[in-house]
Formats: sequence, structure tokens, C-alpha cells
Amino acid sequence: MKVGVLTGGGDCPGLNAVIRSVVRKGVQEYGFDFVGLRDGWRGALQGKVVPLGIPSVRGILPRGGTILGSSRTNPFKDEDGVRRVQDTLAAHGVDALIVIGGEDTLGVATELSRQGIPLVGVPKTIDNDVFGTDYTFGFDTAVGVATEAIDRLHTTAESHMRALVVEVMGRHSGWIALHAGIAGGANVILIPERPFDIHQVCAWVQSRFEINYAPIVVAAEGAVPKGGQMILKDQTQDEFGHVRLSGIGEWLAQEISERTGADARTTVLGHIQRGGTPSAFDRWLATRFGLHAVDAVKDGDFGKMVALRGNRIIRLPLADATAQTKLVEPSLYDEFEVFFG
Amino acid sequence: MKVGVLTGGGDCPGLNAVIRSVVRKGVQEYGFDFVGLRDGWRGALQGKVVPLGIPSVRGILPRGGTILGSSRTNPFKDEDGVRRVQDTLAAHGVDALIVIGGEDTLGVATELSRQGIPLVGVPKTIDNDVFGTDYTFGFDTAVGVATEAIDRLHTTAESHMRALVVEVMGRHSGWIALHAGIAGGANVILIPERPFDIHQVCAWVQSRFEINYAPIVVAAEGAVPKGGQMILKDQTQDEFGHVRLSGIGEWLAQEISERTGADARTTVLGHIQRGGTPSAFDRWLATRFGLHAVDAVKDGDFGKMVALRGNRIIRLPLADATAQTKLVEPSLYDEFEVFFG
Amino acid sequence: MKVGVLTGGGDCPGLNAVIRSVVRKGVQEYGFDFVGLRDGWRGALQGKVVPLGIPSVRGILPRGGTILGSSRTNPFKDEDGVRRVQDTLAAHGVDALIVIGGEDTLGVATELSRQGIPLVGVPKTIDNDVFGTDYTFGFDTAVGVATEAIDRLHTTAESHMRALVVEVMGRHSGWIALHAGIAGGANVILIPERPFDIHQVCAWVQSRFEINYAPIVVAAEGAVPKGGQMILKDQTQDEFGHVRLSGIGEWLAQEISERTGADARTTVLGHIQRGGTPSAFDRWLATRFGLHAVDAVKDGDFGKMVALRGNRIIRLPLADATAQTKLVEPSLYDEFEVFFG
Amino acid sequence: MKVGVLTGGGDCPGLNAVIRSVVRKGVQEYGFDFVGLRDGWRGALQGKVVPLGIPSVRGILPRGGTILGSSRTNPFKDEDGVRRVQDTLAAHGVDALIVIGGEDTLGVATELSRQGIPLVGVPKTIDNDVFGTDYTFGFDTAVGVATEAIDRLHTTAESHMRALVVEVMGRHSGWIALHAGIAGGANVILIPERPFDIHQVCAWVQSRFEINYAPIVVAAEGAVPKGGQMILKDQTQDEFGHVRLSGIGEWLAQEISERTGADARTTVLGHIQRGGTPSAFDRWLATRFGLHAVDAVKDGDFGKMVALRGNRIIRLPLADATAQTKLVEPSLYDEFEVFFG
Repeated sequence: MKVGVLTGGGDCPGLNAVIRSVVRKGVQEYGFDFVGLRDGWRGALQGKVVPLGIPSVRGILPRGGTILGSSRTNPFKDEDGVRRVQDTLAAHGVDALIVIGGEDTLGVATELSRQGIPLVGVPKTIDNDVFGTDYTFGFDTAVGVATEAIDRLHTTAESHMRALVVEVMGRHSGWIALHAGIAGGANVILIPERPFDIHQVCAWVQSRFEINYAPIVVAAEGAVPKGGQMILKDQTQDEFGHVRLSGIGEWLAQEISERTGADARTTVLGHIQRGGTPSAFDRWLATRFGLHAVDAVKDGDFGKMVALRGNRIIRLPLADATAQTKLVEPSLYDEFEVFFG
Repeated sequence: MKVGVLTGGGDCPGLNAVIRSVVRKGVQEYGFDFVGLRDGWRGALQGKVVPLGIPSVRGILPRGGTILGSSRTNPFKDEDGVRRVQDTLAAHGVDALIVIGGEDTLGVATELSRQGIPLVGVPKTIDNDVFGTDYTFGFDTAVGVATEAIDRLHTTAESHMRALVVEVMGRHSGWIALHAGIAGGANVILIPERPFDIHQVCAWVQSRFEINYAPIVVAAEGAVPKGGQMILKDQTQDEFGHVRLSGIGEWLAQEISERTGADARTTVLGHIQRGGTPSAFDRWLATRFGLHAVDAVKDGDFGKMVALRGNRIIRLPLADATAQTKLVEPSLYDEFEVFFG
Repeated sequence: MKVGVLTGGGDCPGLNAVIRSVVRKGVQEYGFDFVGLRDGWRGALQGKVVPLGIPSVRGILPRGGTILGSSRTNPFKDEDGVRRVQDTLAAHGVDALIVIGGEDTLGVATELSRQGIPLVGVPKTIDNDVFGTDYTFGFDTAVGVATEAIDRLHTTAESHMRALVVEVMGRHSGWIALHAGIAGGANVILIPERPFDIHQVCAWVQSRFEINYAPIVVAAEGAVPKGGQMILKDQTQDEFGHVRLSGIGEWLAQEISERTGADARTTVLGHIQRGGTPSAFDRWLATRFGLHAVDAVKDGDFGKMVALRGNRIIRLPLADATAQTKLVEPSLYDEFEVFFG
Repeated sequence: MKVGVLTGGGDCPGLNAVIRSVVRKGVQEYGFDFVGLRDGWRGALQGKVVPLGIPSVRGILPRGGTILGSSRTNPFKDEDGVRRVQDTLAAHGVDALIVIGGEDTLGVATELSRQGIPLVGVPKTIDNDVFGTDYTFGFDTAVGVATEAIDRLHTTAESHMRALVVEVMGRHSGWIALHAGIAGGANVILIPERPFDIHQVCAWVQSRFEINYAPIVVAAEGAVPKGGQMILKDQTQDEFGHVRLSGIGEWLAQEISERTGADARTTVLGHIQRGGTPSAFDRWLATRFGLHAVDAVKDGDFGKMVALRGNRIIRLPLADATAQTKLVEPSLYDEFEVFFG
């Protein structure tokens, strides 16, 4: 059996750990052959196919990024896309695919699976918003980087009695902001799922100053004020074609400064959240996802995605996982309200 | 309502995060008063009770250890123990206890609860072997420290073509060894739940050398050879009264060296696994445990322990949790066999 | 003898380590009394003076920021400033000052010393640009944070074959950019001391892509193009009253993108470079600076600054140190040219 | 010109950074050819020579260990050694050597240089005890690892009011112990250069307990008690043929425990101090050493060693550097006495 592997979407710590465990178990235990499709779906469209054996995956467990490259290419934007993917698989004798990606990449996989391509999905996103799995790998690393940054910013904030706004990743969901904000001892946490009231934010900021501490505000990049209080300075399409609400951190610092009279600054963490060596948790999770994905291929159990539930890895229909986004529930956010202000 | 808080057993990253969230929510939301019992059950026996207010818990979230101190004192080893604990609570007007500890501390709590003391348990151990919860806080930090150490040891092993044995914590369970071993790309992982065959270990070590890589062997301190192949050099009682099997790492390096002719060395990670700032994951988990524990007190839901299931915090009877130890299941260990050798 | 201590300017990892060693040695060895002047020169102007004993400095060695607070207040901007500082010292019986600060704070100290105030200076800046000392504390920590960020960004750059621009601190000098860029394996390093040619930058970027690697460009915030090729998007006064050249990172990414056709992004590291726990090197240096500063006070050797030369701590006239800025010499920059492109 | 490169002795973070900068500058700027001699002097003896071009050094800057392997082989222990080294160089047309190593490796280089082999030395040791250079690369990384471990151990010590002994590397010199001990806030620091009085150690330990803090004792592995108060449990020859004084940490914990009645434990940091990614400082220093070593070859300035003096890289005669070991001077140790106890 020959199995193709591809990684799509934004890079994410743990991608290489998945590739490694897929190949190690597939070759050693099941005698599979592997090839890599370069740069996500682009490789499938353009026939960029590379050999993928055990020597290729030596030493990659602790490395960030992906040895297979990635892209945001969507084969359905090409009239002939599906046929071209099928041609590539046929030309290289690929019997099944393991597709490692986030919302967009797995959405494509779901549709290709419906059209008969045998594949198994592995959820990947630092944003943690894939439905059906307790966690995605990459998220723990991103939260760790953001928390360490918040730890560092506390001392600057205190030394100058200044409000610091930290903008973290999360266009549609506030998982990174919530986890890093709680772990970092933030005083305000703003997430896309819960439009915020700028007056409330300023009240929290001020109550913190009143007890002689300096407030840290953690905002997901997709956080938005209630009822359009914000006029966005900048609206751009990001690398995945999504509209990116830019400047929430900068906007918040200005508003806080103007409304409270306090000194306020912003730090936008940006790409350092998504690169570098994966945390131990992410290496563990990514490794297990890989092992179970290759088992699903062995079982011929296609159209499925591996997922974490508690301590077990399960398989669920890809279509179920990609039908919705996993958002922060109101009750979870409310759990932490006692720390605000 | 006045609530007492105590931390027992070995120190563990996240203890302070629990204390902080208990006090913050208890005071701000429920109007509770708090006191701390110093040094675990010893404070309860000896009446060492200290005030515990919001100022006491400022800034402690990222700090390892416990501001309340800890000990392995067991009130049931004192004839009068239970009565003395009750006297202390009565003397200070303590209406309920929040007990943060591992197997031993929670075992005591279970029995005291049976005897009518209103209390709620919070599971704590870097070993991750408390039954009924997916994870305990402290474990992720310990695994992170051990994984970083293994990452470092790889380069030394490769530069000298030498086998390196890393002894990690885990007297009764192999959770740290298994997680850190997988995350660190170890070639052999030995855990107490699965007595090992030294010939198999040496075969794995040699097969690694044969492909020109240097093997890393991760062994839980409680790992044991099958059928008593090992004569323990040293057997001591540890601080918690348990027999400590000392020297498994040293023994392994000697055996590997003698049997394979390769150069082999040992590193015993020791206490650096249990101290220092908690990881973001542990801060998150410990904070949530604290919030839910104080809710249980508010609800009068005593004799319970908070626990993690998937992404939810549940309560389960303390007696259920302390009736057994959570061991690594054979099927989980076998999942990773492909990486050995 | 009563000694006053103050910390001025931007916060910097190691300030607390200096305060601690000053107080420990001063009290234990020389029997001095200490007070702290809050928030830099502002405390000296406004009489904000706090007791400073050994208990105040317990546990602060590893903590970022400054327990004394900081500000950019300049007593010479106040007509009566010098007299008010003298009044504060007289009112509290302060016999001598230890002044810990960067260019601005030490500039004030130099002038006050000329006017007869007995004081000793300790150089502090993450920028490393104080003249007369091989290193200032805080710099090593900042370089470490920036290097770790660059390490992380490499994997993102490679996975997407994208140019990444990292903007680091350094308004007037390129020390952080040069050290972190070399340590992080950057392909282009731009510093204020050496105006750059955007065509050359793009040529280096392209030559990197040509060998199938993704370029990392490290730019000090004060880097400028030759002959005004850049129209600055934004010019603001920073917290210390300096003009801040904002947007060099963003500008570079746009230019690179337009001129080479490659995808290019920017990460602005910002305040995470100046906060948090100091590196071992900075704790060592800050501790020694503190010990030698209090020795200088003991010796009555005022108007001096402690400085590092090789492995020795020396004293030099404050006036010599503050007469100029320590810039990156052309020959040092040229040493690394082989790594560009 | 063809240049051979070898790395000898214990592995050390930064070796790869030297190799990379030697090759990058040698090839790009001077048009040199390079070969690697495998496993230190063993490769020179046995003719194990491998090609070494720019592709071989891509991506190795942040990696610990050495891509060339290492050993403690001494060609002078072989009757014919020198001739065999000369034969290897002749057989492969090697015109000059760059020898990266510590005391032993450079000692061999000094002698070979005397016998006419054109070579340049680069000092390497985590112990920092090569004479003539302010620092050696690897040392800063080792100190950083040890300091982080001490940071972690503080919280365990405090939580249990226990003395913790940390044994760090340093057979002949106490540089790591002194730097990490000062940076980590240790209460006792023991180094080989200064035989200790166990009564004094215990007095310091007790004085720390008396103010309700828990003592941390940092001991270099080569630390020895005055006048033979210690009976060594174990004396072994280490991998470099030196006698290794084993068990100083364990011995200290036992003595402290018996003499003071306090609970005392030991952590032996071991090999984690010498592996893994180099710190930014070490990457910078190693890179510069490499650049200057290849310049010395270009200049035909053989029999020299590159060294750090302040911020400059100089060349000094190998014979001067290897004639003695750089020990911690009494005056430097005494500088920190105020922190003991």
C-alpha cells in the first residue's frame, strides 16, 4: 500500500512529529510505502510528489514547521482541481492520503472524501478551534510562548505603572487568549466569541491601578467591541483568504490611554506563536495522532479524522468535525470572571 | 463561612495557583474567609493556622512550591490525631477544608471525611497517578523539564556515540517516563507497570547503534527488571515513608555497558522535575481546580474531589479516587512500541 | 552612613539584582543604612523615599523590573530641580546616592555630581550602548529573547518560503540586532550605524530564496535606508522623549514584497525584550556591579561609574562614560558580512 | 588551500557554530577547501576524513554537539602517532588544521605545532578554564542550565524547609559553580580552588534556616574538604583519563544532615549541562572564534589560539595558553562572601 502525506495551512509546531510517527509505524509495522505531497494541496494539484522514508523523518520530532512545506492552495478553486488531484494520486500509485491541516485543509479533505478519495484527516491548528477534539497540537506551544511573553511583560508594566495590551492569535476563537491570559495572570481577556464593552475594559484597567498593580490586557486578534465602537484602522486579507481584523491591540491601547489617562502600550506577538520546537504536550499529541491515523488507513476506515477525547484517541467522521468551529463557550469564559479587574 | 486550606506531600508546580484561585473566588464571589494550615496535616495537628487573604495570594500564580509549606505528617499515625485536627478546626472556627495533595494526603482526607469533617479534595502530583482525573497539575511541568533534558542529552550521546540513561521520577507509575520519553524521542522507555527484560533493552540499544545513532534510555525510578535480574544496590525509605528503589539508572548503565560493550552513562534528573514555575497548562488546570473546589464548598458538596475529564472539571467521591492508583495501561504502552530500538 | 538608591529610565532585567547586592553588602559588610528613591529622579524631586533593608531585597534576584519603580523624570527640566533633589537628600539624611540607569539617567547623575552631590553610577540598558563598559546588564537577556524568537521564526519562514523581518530594539545602536541576528542565523542584519541600501537587502533576500532557504531579516528599530529612500509612516516621541522611528520592520516587509515578489511578513518583538527574569549572565554582572558600586561609596570615590572590562569591574569617571554613546564599529559589523545573503 | 577541521574532548554547545563559521568564511571569502577529521585526533590517526562543504554546515548553528564527532584519543600515546597524523594530512592534501578543543586537545595541538604541523587552535570547554581567554563557548550555556535548575530547586527547598545540594561540573575549576551559584542565589558555593571547612558549611546552612529560608549549596564536582575530612566513596577514571572525585554532592548532603539535623538532598546535574542548543552568547562567541581562526590560517599565523579579551578576539601562542589552567582567583571568590550563609 502506498500512502501520501500532506500538510496544509499555516505552519504549526508538531507537524513533523505527525509525519514521523505516521511513517515510522506505517513502514515498520504495516510495510506501507510513503510519499509526500509538497506544499499542501498545491503538491496534489501540480504533481509535486517526493519520496518519504524512515531516513527522511530522522531527527524531525523536535523541529517546528513541516518538512513537506505548506500552502493555502484550494483545489476546488481550480475548475479541474479534483480531477488533477486524482490524476496525481493515480500517476504515483497513491492508494490513500493522510491529510494534516486545519479548518480549510480538512474542509477540502471532507469534500474530496465525499468524491471518493480514500483519506484520513489529522486536525492541526494553533488556534485549537477544530470541532470534535479536546485539543489540537500546536496550541499548547502557542499558549506557552504567549504565557512566557505575558510573564515578561508584567515586570515592565509594574516598573512603569503602565497598562500593557498583548495581542495574541485567534481570528475566530479565543482559545489562545483565554488560556494564556489565565496562565499569565491577565486582568482583562478579550475574545471574539464575546464582544467587549470598552467602558468595562477601562473600568477593569482602572481598578487594577487603584490597588497599585499594573494591568495586562490580553486580546485575541479577532476580539471586537460591542456594537461597532471600533472603527478598524486596517482590514486586510490574510494568507488564507480570511479577512484579518488588524490593529485591535493598537486600538485598545489608544482607547485605554485616552479614556483613563494611563500610559498604555501594545505588543503584538505575531508569528513567534506558531514556530519553533513543539512543547512536550504537543509532541505527545502529534505523535499519537500520527500513530492512530496510520491505523485508520490500515483499517480502511476512510473519511475519518483522529481526535483527542480525554486521554483516548478516537476517530470521528470528517464531515462532523468540519461542519462547525469549536468556540469558547460562554460558561467557560464566565468561570474566570473573578480574575478580571 | 470560614474555609481552611492545606497542601500536603511533595511540592508540585501549581500548588500556589490553586491556593490563589480558591481565595480569589471564595472571597470575591462568596464572601468566605480563609485560613491556611501550615505544612500539610502537621498544621492541622499542631494548630499552626495563618490568615489567608487576597493580599497573601498576589503574585503567586507563576511561583513553584507552596506558600503554605508542606509535610508528610499523617494524623492517623497519632493516636489522638483526628480529635486534634477537629480541635484545631473548632478553635479557629473553620467550617470546611480544601485539601490539596496526592495519594497519601487525599487518603487521609478520605478517612477524615468519613469521620465527618467537611472537606473537598484537589488532586496534586507530578506523577499523574491519581485515579479519576485525566491529568494532575505539576505533571506537565515535570514532563517539560524531563523532555528538555532529553533534548539536551541527544547531542552528547551522538557526539560520543554513547548510550545515555535518564532516570526520571515515578515510583509506582511510568507517566513521566512515557510522556517525556515519547516527546524526547527516546529509544527505550522503562516503566514500573511493565517489568523489563534486560536482554531486550540491550538489543534495542544495539539496534540503535547499528544505524549510527546513539540510544537514549528513559527509565522511571520504579522500573524493575523481570524476575529479579537486578540486585538493588540501595534501598531507602523516602520522605513519604515509601521504599525507594534507588539506582535503577546507574544499574542500567552498568548492565548496558557490560553486556553490549558500549559506553553508557546515567543522568538522574531528581528534584529539578518538581520545582520552579509551572507550565501554562499546569497553571490553567490548577486555577480551574481551585475555582471548582471552592464551588463545591459553596454547594456543601463535601467528600468530593475535583477532577479533569476531557475539557470539563467534574466532582467525584474522594473514596473512589483514592481506592486505586492510575497506572499506565498496557495498551497505551504498546502503542509506542514502534519507536523502541 | 545612609545611602539612597534609585533606578531610572526603561526597565531592564537585572535592576533588582543590583539593588539586592548593594544592600546586602552595604548592610552586612559596611553597616550602611539604605533608602530607596521611588520612580527614578521623580522620587528625588518629590521626596518619595522608602526604607530599604535586607528584608526588602529577599527573593528579588531572579525578578525582572525594579522594586523601586522607574520614570523618565529629568530634574534639570525643573527650574528648581537640583535644589529639590538636595533638599530631599538632606531631609532624609542621605549621604550618598547609587544611581542605576542608562544614558539619560546617568547624564543627570553626571551633572548632579558636578554640582556636588556624592554619587556613584551603575550602567543599565538593554541596548548595550553605554560607553566605557564591555557590556551592560539586561542586554544578554534581550539578546536571548530575540534569538529564541528568531529560532522560532525560521521554521515558519521555511514552511511557507517567506521572508520574515524581525524588528528588535535599538534606536541609536545595533547591538541587539547584531548579536541576535548572528546568534539566530539571520541573512540580513540592519543597524542604525550603517544606513542600508534597499537594493542590496533585496538582493540578499533573493539569493537566499535561490538556494531554497527562506530569509530572515533582523532590523534594529533605528535602522535607516541610505539617502532617505524611506518615507517614515509614523514618527512619535517615545517615553523617554526621543523621536522613535516607527515602522521600519513593516516598511521593509512591504518593500521586499514589492521589489522581489516574495511573500514577506514582520514581527515586532517589542517589550518582551526588556521584561522578565534576567539571564544568568545578567544576574552575575548586575550582582558584581552592585558590589563594586557600594565599595566605591565606601571608598568615597564619587562621580564614578562601575564598568566591565574583560572579567574585571573597574571604575571610570561618569563624565567620560556619558560623553558619548558606544556604537557598533564598522569593523565589527563587517566581520559578519560573510553570513549575509 | 585545503584545511582540516577537528573537534576533540567532551562535547560542548557551540562546536557546530565554530565549524559553520570556519567553513562559511573559508569557502566564500578565501576559496579554501575543507575536510573534517572524524572523532577528534582519532580521525587524524586513522585517516577518517570526510568532505566538509557549505551544504554540510547548513542549519547546524543552533545544534548542540558536533557534526564531526569527538573522542579523547591522544596521538602521543601511540608510538607512531605523530607520523600517522602527518601521513593522514599528506594523504588528503591537508595544508593546515583548525583544532577545536579543551585543555587536552589543545595540549596535543601545541606539541604537534612544535613538530611542524601548521595549525590554529580554538578553545572549547564548558568549564571555562582555558588560560588566556576571558570566556570559552559552552560555558554560558552550562551556567544557564545550572542556574535554571537552581531556580527550580529553590521552591522545593522552601516548601519542605530542606537543604538542597546541587553538584555541578568542574573537576579542576569552580567557574560553573561560582557563576551559577551567584546567579541562582545560592547560600554556599564550593569550588576546587578553595578547600572547604565542613563546619563552616554547616554554620552557613544553619544561619539560613534560622531566618526561615532553605539553603541551597552549589558544589563543583571537584570541590574538596580541607585536610581530608572527606573519605571519598568512589574514585573513578573518567572518559578523559582524569581521576573523577565522585560523590561530593552526596557526601555533603549526608554530612549536613548528620551535623545539623536538617533534611538534606542532592541533585547531580550531570550531562544536561553540556548538551543542547547553545545560548545566544555562546553562538556569538563560537561564531567569532571560527571567523578569526580561519583568518589566522589565511595569514599563515600558525601555532596560535584565538581568544576573547573584552570584546575583541585576539591570537596568542598556543604554548602560552596550554601551559596553565585558568582558575578562579581567591579575590574573585571573596567578592561574593557576603552572600554566603
